[in-house]
Amino acid sequence: MSHRPAPTDIDIHPLIAGRWSSRAYAADKPVAHEDVVALLEAARWAPSAYNVQPWRFVVFEKSADSAAFERAFATLVPFNQSWNANAQVLFAVLADTLTAKGTANPTAAYDAGAAAMALLLQAHAKDLAAHSMSGFDANAFREAFAIPERFTPIAMISVAHHGDAKGLPEALAEREQAPRARLPMGDLAHFGAWTQAG
Amino acid sequence: MSHRPAPTDIDIHPLIAGRWSSRAYAADKPVAHEDVVALLEAARWAPSAYNVQPWRFVVFEKSADSAAFERAFATLVPFNQSWNANAQVLFAVLADTLTAKGTANPTAAYDAGAAAMALLLQAHAKDLAAHSMSGFDANAFREAFAIPERFTPIAMISVAHHGDAKGLPEALAEREQAPRARLPMGDLAHFGAWTQAG
Repeated sequence: MSHRPAPTDIDIHPLIAGRWSSRAYAADKPVAHEDVVALLEAARWAPSAYNVQPWRFVVFEKSADSAAFERAFATLVPFNQSWNANAQVLFAVLADTLTAKGTANPTAAYDAGAAAMALLLQAHAKDLAAHSMSGFDANAFREAFAIPERFTPIAMISVAHHGDAKGLPEALAEREQAPRARLPMGDLAHFGAWTQAG
Repeated sequence: MSHRPAPTDIDIHPLIAGRWSSRAYAADKPVAHEDVVALLEAARWAPSAYNVQPWRFVVFEKSADSAAFERAFATLVPFNQSWNANAQVLFAVLADTLTAKGTANPTAAYDAGAAAMALLLQAHAKDLAAHSMSGFDANAFREAFAIPERFTPIAMISVAHHGDAKGLPEALAEREQAPRARLPMGDLAHFGAWTQAG
């Protein structure tokens, strides 16, 4: 089930409405390296403050280097390990917290989020399932891959071809097919003034 | 000049390749309120850790409430004020730094960045110019609009219809037409291991 458009209140571009965070991944179907690179290329063209481009990705392709993939996979929290058995690619998303001058970059994580969103949307454009997760041990990841202090691991994105939700544990299969939900617009958007609702 | 696709190394979706941060805004051409809401709707469907949706937007439409718009505009740094004279809408992007339990949300800014990217892409889908800026006084903004402590103003996004770069000061007009540039892929993507290049 790869088609699960957001029940939007207003029409938005189908690439944005159609992207969603699946957990049903196809077994044993590697993601082509050229697709992995296309996902990174989409991230590369994201905007950032002063065009600093503070995003970094450490990419783990199961089919290319299963040992490295397993070391990255081991940093996922148990719940995420449970449904990612068929994940083919893991992208660790890191932010460079410092500018070239060595001062703090206050928008590093915000800019990394923009790049990650481009990556997720490009995955959807290629009909790949992609899911960004904060549930991983950032310190364990840092240690396992000797990440320098200035770079902060923020998230892990898993990617695979879409699979059948029936292969998931029952509770997750249900969640996979439940209506997608978001806060009402009034909770997140305020016009002309801050209002306490949000 | 609204068509300025990224010179990508690899083909990516045209919505992502075609989005760019223009500074040439059309004068006196309001952005329809329904378009403003569509941009917010795109942001609304972004992914976030535990679906917490920590993004908030305070939206200023010049044509609807010019006094509020001017108060928000006044928090931009002088350089951004200089080229935003024709901006029609300002979106202040805020992150809710706390979870419902009152603990810190470590991915609030990253998730807000994803939502902002969706907003920028939806603007491009509507052939609107949109530009995310970190150059504003977040404290002044917080004070002017009585933003509660738990919400952090991260960026200001200005939106308008595309205009003519000839209307910009010479240095900016040149920058507007210069080739778009990003770091080479090798600086931002590492495969299987961290390498010092990035």
